[in-house]
Amino acid sequence: MNSRPLKTTDNEDNNQSRSVGIVGLGLIGGSIGLDLQELGWEVRGLVHRSKTAKRAKERGLASEISTHPEILAECEIVILALPLDQLIKPDPSILQSIPKSAVITDVGSVKLPILKIWEKLHPRFVASHPMAGSTESGVNSGRKGLFVQRPWVITPNQNTDKQAIQIIQKLAEALGSDLITATPENHDQAAALISHLPVMVSAALLRTIGNETNPTISNLCKQLASSGFEDTTRVGAGNPLLGKAMASFNRKEILKGIKEYKNHLETLEQVILSEEWCKLKLELEKAQALRSNFLEKLDP
Amino acid sequence: MNSRPLKTTDNEDNNQSRSVGIVGLGLIGGSIGLDLQELGWEVRGLVHRSKTAKRAKERGLASEISTHPEILAECEIVILALPLDQLIKPDPSILQSIPKSAVITDVGSVKLPILKIWEKLHPRFVASHPMAGSTESGVNSGRKGLFVQRPWVITPNQNTDKQAIQIIQKLAEALGSDLITATPENHDQAAALISHLPVMVSAALLRTIGNETNPTISNLCKQLASSGFEDTTRVGAGNPLLGKAMASFNRKEILKGIKEYKNHLETLEQVILSEEWCKLKLELEKAQALRSNFLEKLDP
Repeated sequence: MNSRPLKTTDNEDNNQSRSVGIVGLGLIGGSIGLDLQELGWEVRGLVHRSKTAKRAKERGLASEISTHPEILAECEIVILALPLDQLIKPDPSILQSIPKSAVITDVGSVKLPILKIWEKLHPRFVASHPMAGSTESGVNSGRKGLFVQRPWVITPNQNTDKQAIQIIQKLAEALGSDLITATPENHDQAAALISHLPVMVSAALLRTIGNETNPTISNLCKQLASSGFEDTTRVGAGNPLLGKAMASFNRKEILKGIKEYKNHLETLEQVILSEEWCKLKLELEKAQALRSNFLEKLDP
Repeated sequence: MNSRPLKTTDNEDNNQSRSVGIVGLGLIGGSIGLDLQELGWEVRGLVHRSKTAKRAKERGLASEISTHPEILAECEIVILALPLDQLIKPDPSILQSIPKSAVITDVGSVKLPILKIWEKLHPRFVASHPMAGSTESGVNSGRKGLFVQRPWVITPNQNTDKQAIQIIQKLAEALGSDLITATPENHDQAAALISHLPVMVSAALLRTIGNETNPTISNLCKQLASSGFEDTTRVGAGNPLLGKAMASFNRKEILKGIKEYKNHLETLEQVILSEEWCKLKLELEKAQALRSNFLEKLDP
């Protein structure tokens, strides 16, 4: 990584050690811990269980690791790398241990409800969402360079501390992310379409195929399943707790997405029902063009 | 490849050259041509355009290549590696050139309508479906070893010539495929669920995201699109002509699949609407378990 160590204050050029606290050392927290240590930061990791602390120490995910929230005292930045439900209902002991002067951010995949809660809890909270998911999770999954060229969305509102925003922007840039700024409302609408709706669409496909009652057909499906099935059903078989949390905290937007989706599926159904084959080809051509338009940056 | 050259008759141990005709040298036809030549067969390739013939010769996809159907004369086996619509409405000049004594097979992804047509056209036709798709197609896409450990479904009915079935089974095995035998009806039902329904489900997702009218949200979707979106939309952006053909020739089964699918999506929608979060988690857990059950053979 060729980024410069980030600055949190203007009088930073003394030589005292600078510290970041990370709450949770799973895929996101652990990866941030590895990268920030390489950038010269003192990283203090807070985890829930002593077994996790032991493994996180073995993996060197942070400079110091503890199950006691006091480890966060004196941290300049605190990153809440926690599941959505723990961001929505924060543990009071963690809350008490976060210094009032620290800049706080989270990594949750839904932004508006988190910002609404945390802006009342801490004066320097900045809602953010690094998009570097993977099928892996837990203390064994963190790795160096996870955020390089991946989007990191910062979602401030008019009350968010301007200096705190800059500090989180620099943090994301130091980790190699592509910085995006959006309102929390827009983030949640786009995430519903691009990320949460696909989970439900894909899960419903799995349930449809799994619900086949004729064992001959069901066995044949298993024998014929190949890369197309594998790709289309990947996100539908993701972490059920995360799926539940996304739906519950982004309920309105995901319901809007499902409604829209049903209209489009019913258009295809109607075209097949009425045997309008030229129209079906046109519809599929539009889908094909849309994907290449969307994935310009992914498919070189 | 360590397979033995296949036998088409009992008195084969003379040294005269044995020949297979392949109609169409795209991904499937071209790959079969490369492998069969390596197994010691004389391969005669028939293509539509002289430009294609030139490229196929450069790539060595067959021993002899022509745009004239007479090239099929004296072939012991003829493989129709053509798009579905050309299998459903075969070119009379090709039909005339296929020797009555030859064993014929096709590679179409829908079996019942093809078998219904071809069993009237040729006494030794065996319907089959090698499942070795890829996003590539055309004369440049054929490659060696495409069928190794991939399913090759043979779908005879009670009228299919028993000796001809054995010959096509040996052909599939010689190419390294995993042989599956199914009725054409069962094949088409399973293919609708595992292969054709995912295309429509995925295309509808693309159309939903593409139909977002707010340019801020639409641009944000583009910025946030990552591997989950990429995977879930891959088959929906496949060849529109193939999607149209699959739907038109497997219409009843695909409509049944879409109807079932809508029920399952509506179950998820209802659970989210009524905020039954424990139930949503259960539904997603079932989806997760189903996928690993289906993909045992794919995910080592």
